[in-house]
Amino acid sequence: MSTFLSAKYRDLEPYTPGEQPRDMQYVKLNTNESPFPPSEKARKRAQEVIGRLQLYSDPECTELVQTAAGLYGISPEEILFSNGSDEILDFIFMAYCDEEHPAVFPDITYGFYPVFAQINRVPYEEIPLEEDFSIDPKSYQKPGRTVFLANPNAPTGIALSLEQIEEILQSHPENVVVIDEAYVDFGAESCIPLIHRYNNLLVVQTFSKSRSLAGARLGFAVGNRELIRDLRTVKYSVNPYNVNSMTMAAGIGALEDEEYRIRNCAVIMENRAYTERELQNLGFSMTSSSSNFIFVKHPKIPGEELYLELKKRGVLIRHFSKERIRDYNRITIGTREQMDILIREVREILDSRKS
Amino acid sequence: MSTFLSAKYRDLEPYTPGEQPRDMQYVKLNTNESPFPPSEKARKRAQEVIGRLQLYSDPECTELVQTAAGLYGISPEEILFSNGSDEILDFIFMAYCDEEHPAVFPDITYGFYPVFAQINRVPYEEIPLEEDFSIDPKSYQKPGRTVFLANPNAPTGIALSLEQIEEILQSHPENVVVIDEAYVDFGAESCIPLIHRYNNLLVVQTFSKSRSLAGARLGFAVGNRELIRDLRTVKYSVNPYNVNSMTMAAGIGALEDEEYRIRNCAVIMENRAYTERELQNLGFSMTSSSSNFIFVKHPKIPGEELYLELKKRGVLIRHFSKERIRDYNRITIGTREQMDILIREVREILDSRKS
Repeated sequence: MSTFLSAKYRDLEPYTPGEQPRDMQYVKLNTNESPFPPSEKARKRAQEVIGRLQLYSDPECTELVQTAAGLYGISPEEILFSNGSDEILDFIFMAYCDEEHPAVFPDITYGFYPVFAQINRVPYEEIPLEEDFSIDPKSYQKPGRTVFLANPNAPTGIALSLEQIEEILQSHPENVVVIDEAYVDFGAESCIPLIHRYNNLLVVQTFSKSRSLAGARLGFAVGNRELIRDLRTVKYSVNPYNVNSMTMAAGIGALEDEEYRIRNCAVIMENRAYTERELQNLGFSMTSSSSNFIFVKHPKIPGEELYLELKKRGVLIRHFSKERIRDYNRITIGTREQMDILIREVREILDSRKS
Repeated sequence: MSTFLSAKYRDLEPYTPGEQPRDMQYVKLNTNESPFPPSEKARKRAQEVIGRLQLYSDPECTELVQTAAGLYGISPEEILFSNGSDEILDFIFMAYCDEEHPAVFPDITYGFYPVFAQINRVPYEEIPLEEDFSIDPKSYQKPGRTVFLANPNAPTGIALSLEQIEEILQSHPENVVVIDEAYVDFGAESCIPLIHRYNNLLVVQTFSKSRSLAGARLGFAVGNRELIRDLRTVKYSVNPYNVNSMTMAAGIGALEDEEYRIRNCAVIMENRAYTERELQNLGFSMTSSSSNFIFVKHPKIPGEELYLELKKRGVLIRHFSKERIRDYNRITIGTREQMDILIREVREILDSRKS
């Protein structure tokens, strides 16, 4: 920290992304990436624009917006794209949270929410998940707060139903409710169709998971046009050209290949069920996941120990040191081959502890 | 604006990017883009990563940072990349401006500075340029303010010397001085070598102009490691994966092809001198430009009228309605062919007014 840094940021604790070690080639199951490359249509479209990068990208993302609006059955004024969904979450904290409108989210959820609150100097409240890590909509009936819910939640993978989300939307007529659907394509139901019934609903999605574009950085928010206009004002006050031309093109290509996304999601869900069964056979328990990861614990081996042992053996999973979930690990669902390596190594670790 | 928008942003006036009309094919001299495509090395590198976009980009930008550090003769801890230089300017306003440290910049400069101040709710002061649009370093001897200076300045194109900048740095030991070098490669001198002598200096650059990558969105800040550490903390609290993998790769390729950049800049400077002479022959006067644009006026035709007439004829230039500069237009320097079209159309407009 320099002596020049504004006093307001002296205690800032930034977000810690999942580790990306470079000492060896890992089976990487720690950052919820897709094991599949981007759709060929996405790759082809990105390639086509490389020769024209001397020109600014379209700040309106016109073609991308039109393609997405067509796909989701919404108006182009109801969607705004960003440089990854983190950026649009930050815009939302900026636009809808302040001293009078604190943020509220679960105690166990995406670790970036409290960081966004801090950087924007917004008060926030963390509501404990139930004992079984589920969310009780009743505990969110707190008017005056801007609500942030990941659905499915991370790292638990547990999804809320649309009825439960509607209950929360109805109890917050004066406040924005943000549903972060980063993992929605792996078994949960999207709230996008609800935006025409609730003017306080913002749905956030990303191209990083089911669309295999984590490295391209593309996210978006969907909501009624007044909300989207607010977020556009913020975007044009921070970074109007936030989406580069290659990513914009790749995004269009990905949206044009829904078949590829749906097929990949089906494979991931199949591999998830397979991995769950195998790990249960090895004595693991787990939450009910609707996402591309599972959240597991074993009665005989502490979470951190399993994480470290697997890392030694070339398999990366994610461990969180937070008290309530330190017994658990979050494991990304990859290809069947990757999951078989994971299962084999886990079995060997457990066996070696018996002897 | 929705009823939900935080009161702090009710009066926000976002930045207006240069127009990108789609009704016809224009000779585009309004947003200071390069007329040359990106270096082949940049294009090749970007292409290579498209097939691996399912993986997150490296939040540390390790290879890009190392390449840039080698080129500029600095340490990797002295540089931070961003999603365009607008993003890092926003980070700088966040980190170094507050109620006690207002921002200060010229009344005529990059139009985004007052927007950054507003979105960050930071007081700011605009110091009038001298009568001839130059900057007098003496008028910046205002301790307690964070100074933002574009060098060369926009839209005037006029550059400060390093001695003048040092004078400002020395008069602000307690505050950060930001030198925005978006246009430095077209005839001004970079302050990067000064970062080891002044711990309050931040230099901002972009790949959008001399490196032909406006559509890829890549910018960076250079400064002593404490300042860069502050900005990294802000980045990791807002958008850790802010630079996507394709842009990162293109950036490395562009840095590996200094020869291409230098050659293109030489052509632009040659075309600038040519255009200046031709327009002077037509009765224009202009500021002394060290950038890839010129700032011109004609005694017989108001700035807005010339802009509108040229637009009708398929040539886009930039007009600003701000009182002090409304007689002027900013014209990007393109290829010789583009400049010849501009000159021909200007001549015809002037001729038609005589008759």
